[in-house]
Amino acid sequence: MKEIVLFAILDRYAEWEAANLAAGLNQLAGDRFKAKTVSLGLTPIRSIGGFRTLPDYDLQAVPAGYRALILIGGESWRTEEALKLRPLVEDCLRQNRLLGGICDGAAFLGAMGCLNSVHHTVNDLTDLKRWAGDAYEGEALFVPRQAVRDGHIVTANGTAALEFAREVLLGLQAAPKARVLEWYQFYKQGFYKEA
Amino acid sequence: MKEIVLFAILDRYAEWEAANLAAGLNQLAGDRFKAKTVSLGLTPIRSIGGFRTLPDYDLQAVPAGYRALILIGGESWRTEEALKLRPLVEDCLRQNRLLGGICDGAAFLGAMGCLNSVHHTVNDLTDLKRWAGDAYEGEALFVPRQAVRDGHIVTANGTAALEFAREVLLGLQAAPKARVLEWYQFYKQGFYKEA
Repeated sequence: MKEIVLFAILDRYAEWEAANLAAGLNQLAGDRFKAKTVSLGLTPIRSIGGFRTLPDYDLQAVPAGYRALILIGGESWRTEEALKLRPLVEDCLRQNRLLGGICDGAAFLGAMGCLNSVHHTVNDLTDLKRWAGDAYEGEALFVPRQAVRDGHIVTANGTAALEFAREVLLGLQAAPKARVLEWYQFYKQGFYKEA
Repeated sequence: MKEIVLFAILDRYAEWEAANLAAGLNQLAGDRFKAKTVSLGLTPIRSIGGFRTLPDYDLQAVPAGYRALILIGGESWRTEEALKLRPLVEDCLRQNRLLGGICDGAAFLGAMGCLNSVHHTVNDLTDLKRWAGDAYEGEALFVPRQAVRDGHIVTANGTAALEFAREVLLGLQAAPKARVLEWYQFYKQGFYKEA
């Protein structure tokens, strides 16, 4: 039985933040993990680029034994509807499973108060503080890096798709560390180095 | 009326090769262009990473006035079924519209004989020659770079999602050149430079 890595996606999700990680899981550990998408419903949603994605699960159908939950950024995390994902995030934390957030997915975790005791990053600290208000007390643990992994929590900014993938793959021990770093460098630099 | 950029995707398509371009079209020129997916049928197909994508068009329904055709790599370009896309590629060439191919999408163009009179690149020249046989006579025009644009044709290797996006965006004049290059650098380097 493969372990399920849940990708939470909402309308106008940022596909470039999900693509490397989903593919990397398959490339490096396709025998152990499979990516599955979860959204608020089962109707197709559009990515920012316009691809129509059919979610695998709605919130009611999420399999209890998932291995990790990844919140992919996009333009809907600040809506009232997005709050319906809070129980799933809380379940993931309670079960000590890997929890990832990138771009506004990371900021959503901050606004939920999940980043107050772990090193983390987000797109924009000032913006997070404004959004989260009193719920966010983690400023001293903010790290100005592309992606940050601390315990079970991985965060990244929206230009850090590959670094986010790297840290999640390392957190899941999807492959030996050297193999994950090699995979990362291959895609980061490219086959030919650009001038 | 927005101009349609067609993304041809087949089963087990490489989502990371499509994501930056689709999103970039929206980010830089969402008022002028929209990405639409075309496949052999209208049933959902899975990316390599496992996301289910609902194609917007099957081959019969492609709107005649599309602006560009982009072949996204993946694991199905060498199947018999993929040959059904040849007439669409030929139409694109006949109409002098922008034609892009990345990874096995580029090699498919080579195997169709479309790369014999333009500078181009592919993942692996030796592999292309083996696949294409006599149909490929373009070796002297092969360029060892991440992405190559020559006239209406853009090719790239599978680690060159951002360079491919950059060249297609430039070819479509989606934004002033400086803006496209700035967009490229922002995502290539990332907000924070990794050590």
